[in-house]
Amino acid sequence: MDIECFLNILGNETRREILQMLTERECYVSQISEELNIGQKAIIAHLEIMERAGLLEPHFEKIQKGRPRKYFHVTQNFNMEVNLLPSHFNIRVHSPCMDENVLRQFPRLKELYHQMEKTLVTDHPSRIDGLEDLIDDLMDEREKLTEARKVVDYLLNEAQTEIEEEIVRTRLNKTFL
Amino acid sequence: MDIECFLNILGNETRREILQMLTERECYVSQISEELNIGQKAIIAHLEIMERAGLLEPHFEKIQKGRPRKYFHVTQNFNMEVNLLPSHFNIRVHSPCMDENVLRQFPRLKELYHQMEKTLVTDHPSRIDGLEDLIDDLMDEREKLTEARKVVDYLLNEAQTEIEEEIVRTRLNKTFL
Repeated sequence: MDIECFLNILGNETRREILQMLTERECYVSQISEELNIGQKAIIAHLEIMERAGLLEPHFEKIQKGRPRKYFHVTQNFNMEVNLLPSHFNIRVHSPCMDENVLRQFPRLKELYHQMEKTLVTDHPSRIDGLEDLIDDLMDEREKLTEARKVVDYLLNEAQTEIEEEIVRTRLNKTFL
Repeated sequence: MDIECFLNILGNETRREILQMLTERECYVSQISEELNIGQKAIIAHLEIMERAGLLEPHFEKIQKGRPRKYFHVTQNFNMEVNLLPSHFNIRVHSPCMDENVLRQFPRLKELYHQMEKTLVTDHPSRIDGLEDLIDDLMDEREKLTEARKVVDYLLNEAQTEIEEEIVRTRLNKTFL
């Protein structure tokens, strides 16, 4: 995914609304146009931009009368992170991935991983219930990790500010001595 | 911070380059213009947009000859995250913050927090060395938490795909029975 291209896409409110709709359910042009109250031509242009960027894909579904309907769905799976601090600027794109080392370092993740393995071999319909519970637990864990990173960022900022102040103090001392 | 506004700012390459420069050191207009090889008028326009959005602040410094120089620096401290999955789209802005509960859940963070408290009462120059070591450790910890989230996202995606497939299978079974 080209970061530049993705940032430009996200900079437009209509495109963000379209992405929001398409992650809730697959839609066709006139559905999006009606729900957002925006002309079909404009919607088609936005969809084309996002399709070219590889964010969306269309597929056709037969309907009872008339031509097959063209539905759009999101095909990407990633996380983009922008960090802006007085002394640090960074944009990164992460894709989900499995890493056994991480499971060793985070016991709760290991638990959830094994819970998933167990759930996958159970039968329908308890399988779906199990997966839904697992998704809730994973979302909780994701939130905790996000909170932990906020604390790390807080400490990083404190440490950096402290270093800068120390440097200023040292300079002042040298000036007056 | 207005997400819309921030996304529009980030959608422009020159502005990203300016942010990069200003987080490395404070700069004045002609410095930025020379380094990026872009006219001063354009640089001033970009700086104004970012200043209005609250990302930057100017300050003046006296120089030996002539009028004081106007330097720009970044004043924000936050993290923006965009998550795009086939069934999920979300943009969030996090600010660094301290949370005692998080320290209880992540022992390594608690250790680093206490290391920071100890370092802050030591004397110069070991104080700066201590803080620099701490920053390295915090960056490592941040990276580990990011990796852990990638694993969570991987498991979330697996679970969601599995549920969708299960639903399709159930529908097909009903059709053929």
